[in-house]
Amino acid sequence: MAAKKEIKNAFYAQSGGVTAVINASACGVIETARANKGKIGKVYAGRNGIIGALTEDLIDTSKETTSAIAALRSTPSGAFGSCRFKLKSLEANKREYERLIEVFKAHNIGYFFYNGGGDSADTCYKVSQLSKKMGYPIQAIHVPKTVDNDLPITDNCPGFGSVAKYIAVSTLEASFDVRSMAKTSTKVFVVEVMGRHAGWIAAAGGLVEDQGIPVLILFPEVEFNKEKFIAAVDAKVKEHGFCTIVVSEGCHYPDGKFLAEQGSRDAFGHAQLGGAAPVVANMIKEALGHKFHWAVADYLQRAARHIASKTDVKQAYELGKKAVQLAIQGENSVMPTVDRISDEPYKYKIGMAPLSKVANVEKFMPKNFISKDGFGITKKCKAYLYPLIQGEDYPKYKKGLPQYVTLKNVAVEKKLPEFEL
Amino acid sequence: MAAKKEIKNAFYAQSGGVTAVINASACGVIETARANKGKIGKVYAGRNGIIGALTEDLIDTSKETTSAIAALRSTPSGAFGSCRFKLKSLEANKREYERLIEVFKAHNIGYFFYNGGGDSADTCYKVSQLSKKMGYPIQAIHVPKTVDNDLPITDNCPGFGSVAKYIAVSTLEASFDVRSMAKTSTKVFVVEVMGRHAGWIAAAGGLVEDQGIPVLILFPEVEFNKEKFIAAVDAKVKEHGFCTIVVSEGCHYPDGKFLAEQGSRDAFGHAQLGGAAPVVANMIKEALGHKFHWAVADYLQRAARHIASKTDVKQAYELGKKAVQLAIQGENSVMPTVDRISDEPYKYKIGMAPLSKVANVEKFMPKNFISKDGFGITKKCKAYLYPLIQGEDYPKYKKGLPQYVTLKNVAVEKKLPEFEL
Repeated sequence: MAAKKEIKNAFYAQSGGVTAVINASACGVIETARANKGKIGKVYAGRNGIIGALTEDLIDTSKETTSAIAALRSTPSGAFGSCRFKLKSLEANKREYERLIEVFKAHNIGYFFYNGGGDSADTCYKVSQLSKKMGYPIQAIHVPKTVDNDLPITDNCPGFGSVAKYIAVSTLEASFDVRSMAKTSTKVFVVEVMGRHAGWIAAAGGLVEDQGIPVLILFPEVEFNKEKFIAAVDAKVKEHGFCTIVVSEGCHYPDGKFLAEQGSRDAFGHAQLGGAAPVVANMIKEALGHKFHWAVADYLQRAARHIASKTDVKQAYELGKKAVQLAIQGENSVMPTVDRISDEPYKYKIGMAPLSKVANVEKFMPKNFISKDGFGITKKCKAYLYPLIQGEDYPKYKKGLPQYVTLKNVAVEKKLPEFEL
Repeated sequence: MAAKKEIKNAFYAQSGGVTAVINASACGVIETARANKGKIGKVYAGRNGIIGALTEDLIDTSKETTSAIAALRSTPSGAFGSCRFKLKSLEANKREYERLIEVFKAHNIGYFFYNGGGDSADTCYKVSQLSKKMGYPIQAIHVPKTVDNDLPITDNCPGFGSVAKYIAVSTLEASFDVRSMAKTSTKVFVVEVMGRHAGWIAAAGGLVEDQGIPVLILFPEVEFNKEKFIAAVDAKVKEHGFCTIVVSEGCHYPDGKFLAEQGSRDAFGHAQLGGAAPVVANMIKEALGHKFHWAVADYLQRAARHIASKTDVKQAYELGKKAVQLAIQGENSVMPTVDRISDEPYKYKIGMAPLSKVANVEKFMPKNFISKDGFGITKKCKAYLYPLIQGEDYPKYKKGLPQYVTLKNVAVEKKLPEFEL
């Protein structure tokens, strides 16, 4: 009798800023693993991302009911906890990698699914090299996620479509509001959106132009020129009586200084931004005298599962599912991707990219997506964006509130001594 | 043959800050007037509120199609334009009242429907006295509208239920997000909401407590005590690992100073607020060292028709409808009201209040709606709030965006000389 092939367990973790649909990817991973019980064992989730692996703080997802896992599809945030923690290189911190291998060994883990953005793709890539460099057989698959939409190769990233929809819808609604008030009151509305380096989210605000709204966008990709900007606002208000401005948190002066910095930095060394909207609003008030209102959407935008894009939710799930299928097929060091076939009708397929080409590469807005004056988006950009915000995928409600799931998150028994981070 | 009773036209205007459902009231007014053609003539809307009446800038709503008027029900903002403009007393500014009468006479207007909040109820009340004081027969009916929910007598005000739903949903979503990040990153999330004097909107954020979220509310009704507040945040973060804070824009120190003032004032002399969230967030960072995120919802909250409360939309429509019915019945100087019969199951009827008892009266949160420590809401408050956020009333979407209507707003031909405001 041939020896039975040993079934390995999987590790799954959520990393970096969470989104409205990262749990839909988790749902795709777990449901697909459950459907392939002969090939893949349990899915252990890292409590608070990779930290859960390092500290052997694993969550046994097999303790969750079928309906709880299904409910992840319509629950925003990271159900297992996320973290901002970047592994150093193998050379710089061998101790952490050795610990990861110990934990993987102790729990018979052969698959590593990492659900995150650019920095996380780098971590996943490093883990994928462990087989070669340290002799431990592990298959590492990265599941893309980032509202910033800045991962390369894939046409778009889960999380982005829903933020884009939220920003487009909210900008439209607030613009209707300002238009109503403009005669005697507010003439300028400024909304600040996420996006440190790439203006994808801000670009989504530009879609309201097609609904007759005068809108100006301040991209991180375009150096801020106050004089030119004030002239543009003045022209819009003179023509339409009001104007909406969408400012990216990453908007900056030619010398690199952000319009507003809070001064603190996160674990990855990124400046913590926020507060560009009031700066821009006051600038306009001073130059043109217009009454203004401003909003900073912050977490509201990336958590807004209530207005998630149906396309986005579907793709988030499909990419999670594909990650498990790729693992079963024996792949390592790859990321499933969305490959666009056509804009209208929107068609795409799920493809695959090597992590070596994904890690540490940031995708910015192409030049031909930004209008010549630097304050708007082009037809090409709109054709790219519309499919991503298509469709609504409403959660269920009870007593007026969405029914989001909180998992039991039962811990797997520890087998190893403690580890200091 | 008896002389045919002359059919009078109606004037309708939107006043003050607009909401997600003020157009649903407009829809109720116009559809009900259209259904009573034998009793009421055309509905002329004031372009930009009462200013439209003073400047004889009237919009002929009969030029709009049935479907355009129906679409108002699911369109946020003020379709005819609103204004911040308060009529002085008859004694202080007889000229404006004489002008109003001239315009009403010139366009055969016998009904005055004014859709607004507290200041507007005062204007409507003054107009309702014109028959008695200046001999011009006019029936003035006030249609309640205010996200602040601060009108007396009526159980609640159209616009509030939808903002409450938006704030409850958004606070829940953002809290799930913070909970995911709290281990290594953001531990405190602060969201700033509207409400200058009354904390109704902030209170809605308190509903997330029932979903297991640690939340602290800063009401305008409770004098801000920094020491007590920081201690409360510290306790929540120690217990739960994170904390959400909902701060009302009207939150202030014992001496009346707002946590953040922008320095400018609106036409009614109210201070223009905004920016309490970053103040609170930085205060916590300084005292406790926690990483924070903050959002200022501003117009996004009151314009958020995409997540409007079905109860709110229904009541906004019904109150507009009732206003016309009251006018037909010969009423003057009244406001239709929502009279609650029971919380669960939620039952109410549409009643009526005299404007003399509505104008210039502000309704604050009852003391027994605020928890003893001043940072939360009580069971009584929750029983009041839940019915108001019940149900979803989604607009139709096209290409991923809601299909909101922009009316033609055809002007009525002017018959009078110009009038300087």
